[in-house]
Amino acid sequence: MITIYGDVNSGNCYKVKLTAELLGIPYKWIHVDILNRETQSQAFLAKNPNGKIPCLVLTSGDCLAESNAIINYLAKDSSLYPNDPLTQAYIQQWQFFEQYSHEPYIAVARFIKKYLGLPKDKEQDFASKQEGGHKALTVIEKTLAKQVYLVNDQLSTADISLFAYTHVADEGGFDLDKYPNIKQWIKRIERQSNYIAIG
Amino acid sequence: MITIYGDVNSGNCYKVKLTAELLGIPYKWIHVDILNRETQSQAFLAKNPNGKIPCLVLTSGDCLAESNAIINYLAKDSSLYPNDPLTQAYIQQWQFFEQYSHEPYIAVARFIKKYLGLPKDKEQDFASKQEGGHKALTVIEKTLAKQVYLVNDQLSTADISLFAYTHVADEGGFDLDKYPNIKQWIKRIERQSNYIAIG
Repeated sequence: MITIYGDVNSGNCYKVKLTAELLGIPYKWIHVDILNRETQSQAFLAKNPNGKIPCLVLTSGDCLAESNAIINYLAKDSSLYPNDPLTQAYIQQWQFFEQYSHEPYIAVARFIKKYLGLPKDKEQDFASKQEGGHKALTVIEKTLAKQVYLVNDQLSTADISLFAYTHVADEGGFDLDKYPNIKQWIKRIERQSNYIAIG
Repeated sequence: MITIYGDVNSGNCYKVKLTAELLGIPYKWIHVDILNRETQSQAFLAKNPNGKIPCLVLTSGDCLAESNAIINYLAKDSSLYPNDPLTQAYIQQWQFFEQYSHEPYIAVARFIKKYLGLPKDKEQDFASKQEGGHKALTVIEKTLAKQVYLVNDQLSTADISLFAYTHVADEGGFDLDKYPNIKQWIKRIERQSNYIAIG
């Protein structure tokens, strides 16, 4: 059986858990405490030298890091990651967008507010994340005005990647009421069979 | 023929150019001036709503954004992106590492120094990029102590993705003399047939 190292409150880890659940893939979950710096232990760094969760340990013992790489691998041969190069390219396009233009704003703002309790010395950092977060949400909103899912109008790992932090963006100070198409898309994903909530 | 919108000095755009050249794929190159905000024009935003280069326009007229998604697509069915799910997963792992843990430090430091001329009001920002950049270089260095390329000891799009900004990291203030394995790997890539330099 595969093993997932993660924290159930992390959106990046939740992507992996949600994908495994949607696909009915059995897994063992091992909790890693990031605030307690468990990702920096020698044992963990031997798994992922970059010291980050999630991390997937295959039955071979090999470790695979990076949430989006992990979920595309788990979803191989399924409708969530169709075996067509251009479809896979568009899925990856959204996932690289997520890691560069979305997560560093929305997930980091959420981390500062939810995990750190928005301390005074982080207020400026928190405020600096708002513009980029709204820019990313606007790109998604415009796309979802034309289609029900991000790629080919069919649920894919691209939706899971963007859903993870978008659906809890309010915890980072982003009001989703401004984004009606995103709110519909969130409901659409929450209605999937085998869906599980974050946390 | 495919069309690539880019700037030859951008590492992200160079990834696409280098991949096309290594694979012998003909392309038309259209220069986009980011400092002149050409990526924010209505015409460009119609191609990539996220307003970033590179951007690939296929013969169908469809646009594909995000450098790493583009090069994996261009390299489909080639040895640079082998048709094996686990190999592709490890390639993507390195590419997500690049976009989250490498590019925001090394490419941004280079941008501040090379493009903006390291102005006084950016000195703190520039300095704040050094630690993260060295951390990313250390992860690569340790990997290349054990193997000649990042995935399966064979040149892949993962190497192209990491090479793009690593080989010009000195332009961002990173001294590569501390990383002998990276320096060997750079030479190895520069010796590939059809290799072209950045710029």
